[in-house]
Amino acid sequence: MKLMVTGGAGFVGARLVRALLARGELQGRAIERIVIADQAAPPADLAADVRVEVRTGPLLSQVGALKDEAFDGVFHLASAVSGECEADFDLGLRSNLDTTRALLDALRARVEAGHAPARLVFSSSVAVFGPDASVPLPALVTDTTLPAPQTSYGTHKLVCEHLIADWTRKGFVDGRSARLMTVAVRPGRPNGAASSFFSGIIREPLAGEEAICPVDDTVSHPLTSVRATVDGLITVYEASREAFGGRLALNLPAVNVTVRQMLDALEAVAGPAVRARVRFERDERIAGIVAGWSRGATAERAAALGLRPEPDFATIIRQYIDDHAAHPTALRGLQ
Amino acid sequence: MKLMVTGGAGFVGARLVRALLARGELQGRAIERIVIADQAAPPADLAADVRVEVRTGPLLSQVGALKDEAFDGVFHLASAVSGECEADFDLGLRSNLDTTRALLDALRARVEAGHAPARLVFSSSVAVFGPDASVPLPALVTDTTLPAPQTSYGTHKLVCEHLIADWTRKGFVDGRSARLMTVAVRPGRPNGAASSFFSGIIREPLAGEEAICPVDDTVSHPLTSVRATVDGLITVYEASREAFGGRLALNLPAVNVTVRQMLDALEAVAGPAVRARVRFERDERIAGIVAGWSRGATAERAAALGLRPEPDFATIIRQYIDDHAAHPTALRGLQ
Repeated sequence: MKLMVTGGAGFVGARLVRALLARGELQGRAIERIVIADQAAPPADLAADVRVEVRTGPLLSQVGALKDEAFDGVFHLASAVSGECEADFDLGLRSNLDTTRALLDALRARVEAGHAPARLVFSSSVAVFGPDASVPLPALVTDTTLPAPQTSYGTHKLVCEHLIADWTRKGFVDGRSARLMTVAVRPGRPNGAASSFFSGIIREPLAGEEAICPVDDTVSHPLTSVRATVDGLITVYEASREAFGGRLALNLPAVNVTVRQMLDALEAVAGPAVRARVRFERDERIAGIVAGWSRGATAERAAALGLRPEPDFATIIRQYIDDHAAHPTALRGLQ
Repeated sequence: MKLMVTGGAGFVGARLVRALLARGELQGRAIERIVIADQAAPPADLAADVRVEVRTGPLLSQVGALKDEAFDGVFHLASAVSGECEADFDLGLRSNLDTTRALLDALRARVEAGHAPARLVFSSSVAVFGPDASVPLPALVTDTTLPAPQTSYGTHKLVCEHLIADWTRKGFVDGRSARLMTVAVRPGRPNGAASSFFSGIIREPLAGEEAICPVDDTVSHPLTSVRATVDGLITVYEASREAFGGRLALNLPAVNVTVRQMLDALEAVAGPAVRARVRFERDERIAGIVAGWSRGATAERAAALGLRPEPDFATIIRQYIDDHAAHPTALRGLQ
């Protein structure tokens, strides 16, 4: 089978491709080719795999070609992040809305040319939820909580969920939208996401550096590991439509923790000196964005697919250390 | 002030323009000009008003020009109807999604050129609601019911609600989405909407013609009069943002009735011979679409704005007769 992973050079995307290559199969069929479509080049180990084909460049210009090319499935992860979209409205529209529409148009054109619909897993986000003056945000957002996005990023994710649901209803694609929780601990440098600090306050202290936390330690958020996220995406791909349960998006599992609980876990894993490297310095812009986010989430439909959250945040920190122990530069924030 | 009414030549649009012209003001400001943008020509009485400017042609080609033209407010009613969108997917995308996006892009360009944001009332629809395998449709849909559109029409309405909410958040427009209930009794001939029969089973018998009802008489649906709909649109336009309450769409008021109750009301108003002109002949395509629709609705936010549903469906029938008594051809379905 032939797959495409958009955003396949990114943090989650590269881990997904690595997991798919390690499995060698999906739905019991051998994976012969994975096309990584990304603006950036993927890690060298992925590019070196004979099954991988790398296509580097803006996705919007790439997806039109898909109407003439057969794919069994697409993992659509490519996305500008929330902070970027708040700063540059056009970037968000182009990267997160217009690109997905163009992808859907191309996949539909294949079906209208007589081919079977491709399976599509879309990485939506917990950022679809938020409070509105007309409806409060519940303590925990569920699969059926009314979305009320507070950012352009969340708006475009929600819009794409519904376009994919309608394309699926019409048989133009076999689409499944999964709402990713905030993935931590991300390696490397901070990115433009307003949620970047959720990784930074763990990663930088572990690397011996000071980290700034821009929000109060009472802030609570649904977090997840990259391992659980990759597991979730693959499970959602392989699920039957009946097991997936409808056309609306589902939540992937989360560990609901406060910043204080995160730092308690950091101290438990790495000691008080590491924790002491986190300094609180409120950033009103980031705190304002985060105030509109979910404080926690449940994932009942994902649980029915056998997906479980990590047992606690300390487990996620230990995974991060294990994953990057062979690459100590990552722990130094230099990768 | 200068207003645009897209779809201003349609049934609801023309009634809205007529009401605005009769008032002469909106938000306490004199209405100097109303631009009717529609594919079709408006009724002669509207075109004859010196305050009205008619622009006939596809809206998608018209809205780009709005970036160079000042409007205080826009009522965006233009839309392909549900049955048309199911039959022609591209028509729905172009008419209901791409046109709204182009309108929003043009209004944003005005703001980025230094002008005040235009007020925008968007006619969304009760068609955003539906059952999904993951969540049942409640007996009555409320302002905060989770939308799960079952048609492309409903999908595009919901998507536009969220785009308008995000444009509003960014200050590019002062947008308010109001979900119209199914408007009956529409004069004239049946249109392509799957809901067309809700008018037909009243209008045709009153005109001495036989009507076919394509669904069982137990089917329940939230209906409203054109008068209440026009009232709702104007009230939503004039509401302060605080009174409107958030950026999510609100439901306009409905009378929740079964087909049997509609026919009972017809008999009460016009007699048993008129009711006897309705024949039941199930149409699986229409019954299938209608099965995914709401059986009734509430409108709490609209009530807080002072909007009330008509007291009963018989009142709506009497309004229809009053409105068209001067035009007996309408009662014969010839208009």
